[in-house]
Amino acid sequence: MADARNILFVMADQLRFDFLGCTGHPTIRTPTIDALARRGVRFANTFVQGAVCGPSRASFYTGRYVTSHGASYNNYPHRADEWALGDYMRALGLRTALAGKTHMKPDLPGLQRLGLDPASGAGLLAAECGFEPWDRDDGLQRLAPFVPDTQYEAYLRARGYQGVNLWHEAANSVQRDDAADPSGWLMRNAAFPTIATEEDSETAYMTRRAMDFIEDAGDTPWCLHLSYIKPHWPYVAPAPYHAKYSDADVLPGNRGEGEGEPHPVVAAFRDHPESIEFRKDVCRNTVIPAYMGLIEQIDDHLARMIDFLDRRNQLDNTIIVVTSDHGDYLGDHGLGEKELYFEEALRIPLIIVDPSARAEATRGTTVEEMAEAIDLIPTLIDLVGGVPAYHRLEGQSLAPFIHGGTAQDWRPAVFAEHDYSLRHARPNLGLEPQQAKSWMVRTNRWKYVHHATFRPELYDLQTDPGEQQDLGADDGHARTRAELCQMLFSWMSERKSRVGMTDDQIRSSTGKAWERGYRFGIW
Amino acid sequence: MADARNILFVMADQLRFDFLGCTGHPTIRTPTIDALARRGVRFANTFVQGAVCGPSRASFYTGRYVTSHGASYNNYPHRADEWALGDYMRALGLRTALAGKTHMKPDLPGLQRLGLDPASGAGLLAAECGFEPWDRDDGLQRLAPFVPDTQYEAYLRARGYQGVNLWHEAANSVQRDDAADPSGWLMRNAAFPTIATEEDSETAYMTRRAMDFIEDAGDTPWCLHLSYIKPHWPYVAPAPYHAKYSDADVLPGNRGEGEGEPHPVVAAFRDHPESIEFRKDVCRNTVIPAYMGLIEQIDDHLARMIDFLDRRNQLDNTIIVVTSDHGDYLGDHGLGEKELYFEEALRIPLIIVDPSARAEATRGTTVEEMAEAIDLIPTLIDLVGGVPAYHRLEGQSLAPFIHGGTAQDWRPAVFAEHDYSLRHARPNLGLEPQQAKSWMVRTNRWKYVHHATFRPELYDLQTDPGEQQDLGADDGHARTRAELCQMLFSWMSERKSRVGMTDDQIRSSTGKAWERGYRFGIW
Repeated sequence: MADARNILFVMADQLRFDFLGCTGHPTIRTPTIDALARRGVRFANTFVQGAVCGPSRASFYTGRYVTSHGASYNNYPHRADEWALGDYMRALGLRTALAGKTHMKPDLPGLQRLGLDPASGAGLLAAECGFEPWDRDDGLQRLAPFVPDTQYEAYLRARGYQGVNLWHEAANSVQRDDAADPSGWLMRNAAFPTIATEEDSETAYMTRRAMDFIEDAGDTPWCLHLSYIKPHWPYVAPAPYHAKYSDADVLPGNRGEGEGEPHPVVAAFRDHPESIEFRKDVCRNTVIPAYMGLIEQIDDHLARMIDFLDRRNQLDNTIIVVTSDHGDYLGDHGLGEKELYFEEALRIPLIIVDPSARAEATRGTTVEEMAEAIDLIPTLIDLVGGVPAYHRLEGQSLAPFIHGGTAQDWRPAVFAEHDYSLRHARPNLGLEPQQAKSWMVRTNRWKYVHHATFRPELYDLQTDPGEQQDLGADDGHARTRAELCQMLFSWMSERKSRVGMTDDQIRSSTGKAWERGYRFGIW
Repeated sequence: MADARNILFVMADQLRFDFLGCTGHPTIRTPTIDALARRGVRFANTFVQGAVCGPSRASFYTGRYVTSHGASYNNYPHRADEWALGDYMRALGLRTALAGKTHMKPDLPGLQRLGLDPASGAGLLAAECGFEPWDRDDGLQRLAPFVPDTQYEAYLRARGYQGVNLWHEAANSVQRDDAADPSGWLMRNAAFPTIATEEDSETAYMTRRAMDFIEDAGDTPWCLHLSYIKPHWPYVAPAPYHAKYSDADVLPGNRGEGEGEPHPVVAAFRDHPESIEFRKDVCRNTVIPAYMGLIEQIDDHLARMIDFLDRRNQLDNTIIVVTSDHGDYLGDHGLGEKELYFEEALRIPLIIVDPSARAEATRGTTVEEMAEAIDLIPTLIDLVGGVPAYHRLEGQSLAPFIHGGTAQDWRPAVFAEHDYSLRHARPNLGLEPQQAKSWMVRTNRWKYVHHATFRPELYDLQTDPGEQQDLGADDGHARTRAELCQMLFSWMSERKSRVGMTDDQIRSSTGKAWERGYRFGIW
């Protein structure tokens, strides 16, 4: 198995780019991830295609922009014929599985139309966006109506926890001595430890399940998506991680008190309950320490995973990716949660460790060029020796950066989209579902947001890195806005919907109609 | 079966909008189609979404713009999970079948990925873009390598015709007394009758096959796509239709001698062989009479079909549509064939006859508002009592025009696209496959074409209805171009890729996260 190459694709959910040691947080302890950054390449300017779980993940998993895959919000169904990471990896001989969260929902009417069973065979893969669902857990168990236990909940039940919905009642509720509601949904409970022990927490359980998969794969090359639910809400951590940090670790927020009249869409998001709460110091000072504890917990489990791979002699033939699906405002810009386009939500950590000799020269380096989530699939295909299907894939392989090549003609901008039709902001703004959309282009200097119904937003990232001042209505910047709008127009026109034909197929068929017997136009 | 409603969806291939009696041609004889126009509504300004068979038909059959369905040129595979006319009609209880041409190619790797067999069941429907292939015949039998007989060729063989490829050697070759090549591919042969008799011609055969289907359907409501290959090339007609018209019937061309420096893309198409030949009078004077004969032949067979329906008492419960997939330059603008965006290629006839009492008031009327090919599916759904799935469908129901309603807020513009990556023009212009694209917006006044790589085109349809003068580089029209470009940008941003969620689903779920158990953002 000298050529065997495995991929461990680790995603933390809602992990902000700046909450790691290697990305500059002064007090968080993430030694394992920091060591991975020293062993691999860190892409310091990496952006998601949509700053909310569903669309961002769909872009990660399909390698395509949100407009192209169409799953533009959480629980928006995934088209049955969108090719996904697993399709590309299986074609290269890698068994591709999921341990954790994808947040993907199958297009059941679409599968039914094709006569496909979402529970088995090709239908299952289409329903699970290409992953063998080794242990899927979206961390979003509903309270009512009750749905059957996930594998994780069955585990908790076997471990003796009592309750109806153990994801909520054990893993995401807290130990309190008083009679107050212990639900982890209440952010005030972030200071308390979860009822489930650390060993029984989601992060610990899923790490073990990932190891189970790796053992199960044996000598078969594999691509495993270890997709942690945390540090995503509910913001509660098991002991001792609930108490590893305090309000002394909470950095001053990018609160934006001086931002003046906000854009109507930003204002509508500031009116959401999570934003109202996160604007309060008590909320930030309670939640952020727990959030940091959850990150440190993931880091500790990644240490175990790396030790596990090392003991199996798989560390030197396993590519490791550490990233996130989006950030978390945590009160910055007067906002809670994610969505919109501010850096706190849009920017993610991305570390790629290629154990091969080709990557020796770049170990520990940082790449400043802008990367996108959709770059991951072509990068991984490239690293394991395949040829990216660029008639479908809309990102670009980052392998040249990892192998020490130059980055000539690298992209001048990244793009993202936002569909907020399901949020309160939409009716509050008086919009119909088709109107609650926006699009962003970000260059090294500017961030421009085009709204379907409102004036644009514009931020000068050079003079205003905190994005405090919206120049979207500023007379002096009309030309800049027009240029950026033109970039967005070009980008829209370049979306790859011609997914059935490769450029090579087109090249080899061009002008061949006569040869193929279609002899039109001859007198 | 009082409520039974059938649909006869007739398409002629490459039939120009102005080659019918009812659309103003002074000498062509199309009494049946003209009578249908008097019985129904004629949409005088109807445009295709792409002026070439494959993408135009894919838009007709999916109800979506070319960018949205992605089958942007002939033989570009059709995505397996694009919903098609048959899917909508079957859901309303109509058996939906094809007699004739679709020009659609299945996405075989996509079907294979989903484990679907393109020869049966749901796989067959996905491979045939939703139609039960009662008798598919694309009229494009290849000369080599030889492929098995179509049903039509098997018929010709049974009728005693001799040859290897009977589509070519019998139906599309001509009777000549000399030793010259009799192939119908040679346009000079348009003056001669085909070897196949009229009875054995494609048009006659397919009309009978359509009647066979209607008999087979019995009391089941049906939607039949009777899709004639003609008057598409090879431009050869059976006797007596080969000699029904002469050069006296050939109207002066819109030859554009005074057009000056052409746009580079138009110039590249003028260098194609079919354009060079069609600029010669002898070509026009030979081909156009045969083209007109083929149209008259279709009209005669539609008369038989209508008589057939009448005898079966189905004329009063059958909606009849007569249209085309695009036009034919026939030398106009110095061009042969179709593609690009001039009216001769982009504009099509569209007649819709609704036999219901609701349509009494509009019989024989003409609608001047602009219609698009993608309007057909929502119109048909509407006419048979369904609810158009507007989260996927990008057209608008024309039923209000048919039922005498007003057309408030009707569309201000129509849109089309062109992918010429397979044509000689692409390498001749030095373009890569992803660059050979353009987009058009047409209002009542203007036609604007945005090219990926070249300056735009602009035509003033009011002062220059022949589109002789390209104002795409005219300094005086910069503002008009900017406004039209902005319309194109808005249109691009509105493409419906969120195909898994209806607007109603979004409305009923908006802001319901807490109710569904996701209690984020609570202190």
